[in-house]
Amino acid sequence: MLGRLYEGQNCSIARTLEVIGERWTALIIRDALLGHRRFDDFQASLGIARNVLSDRLARLVAAGILDRVRYQDRPARWEYPITERGRELAVPLLALMQWGDRHLTGPAGPPRLVRHATCGAEVMQRHVCTYCGPVPGAEIAIEPGPGLELAR
Amino acid sequence: MLGRLYEGQNCSIARTLEVIGERWTALIIRDALLGHRRFDDFQASLGIARNVLSDRLARLVAAGILDRVRYQDRPARWEYPITERGRELAVPLLALMQWGDRHLTGPAGPPRLVRHATCGAEVMQRHVCTYCGPVPGAEIAIEPGPGLELAR
Repeated sequence: MLGRLYEGQNCSIARTLEVIGERWTALIIRDALLGHRRFDDFQASLGIARNVLSDRLARLVAAGILDRVRYQDRPARWEYPITERGRELAVPLLALMQWGDRHLTGPAGPPRLVRHATCGAEVMQRHVCTYCGPVPGAEIAIEPGPGLELAR
Repeated sequence: MLGRLYEGQNCSIARTLEVIGERWTALIIRDALLGHRRFDDFQASLGIARNVLSDRLARLVAAGILDRVRYQDRPARWEYPITERGRELAVPLLALMQWGDRHLTGPAGPPRLVRHATCGAEVMQRHVCTYCGPVPGAEIAIEPGPGLELAR
């Protein structure tokens, strides 16, 4: 955790960013979703200082997003498989990716594609009404929830 | 823009975070999605220093996420309505929110609810196959795209 980066904000976006919003953290989760598990694999992918990577991995383990499992005894070595809670972050991270694909990508096209493994068709991140199915952003309403006042 | 925060990363998540990943920026977009348009409204909601808010608003205008429209002449005053490109960020931001609702929220429940304005049912952010409809994360595959090598 980064502590209370957003003091006074009673907001689940702010709380999530306090866990994953530090520089490089989202890209570590991206790599974990792509199957990276070991320190040196993350380090090669990201090219960041080892002490920064150590710090970010420890925070992600503390937040329950990565696990820490010993895979060798002498010398002791650990790997960092992603947890179920971490896998759920694929929705916001791939939604950020596809926004970047649409608005920030050059003529070469997107670096990554997301497909439905079963049928091969493209997968997008969308708003889905539990009753009607996928709906456009213009049809959603953000309303006060039960925790809005109590937790301030 | 924050410049190249993630030098060497050919990744649309990294590119998006270079635009919206700075502290407070995502919460300014949240407030813009909730209907805030004026400097003082953002300032009251976030409680941040005016120079920080000015800086973040200018970057969001430069990135095409907010617009800048004069609403008064003497003295000149501007407001910052969200653009269509900005509205698309509701998908990743609400996906971050709902992850926080599930994993980081106290017993009072979520501060905000997302509903389908037409039918009133709950709206979630999900992976949606263009052929099959909503699919679980376990069924998605992230594959190399056409821009993976060219842009490195």
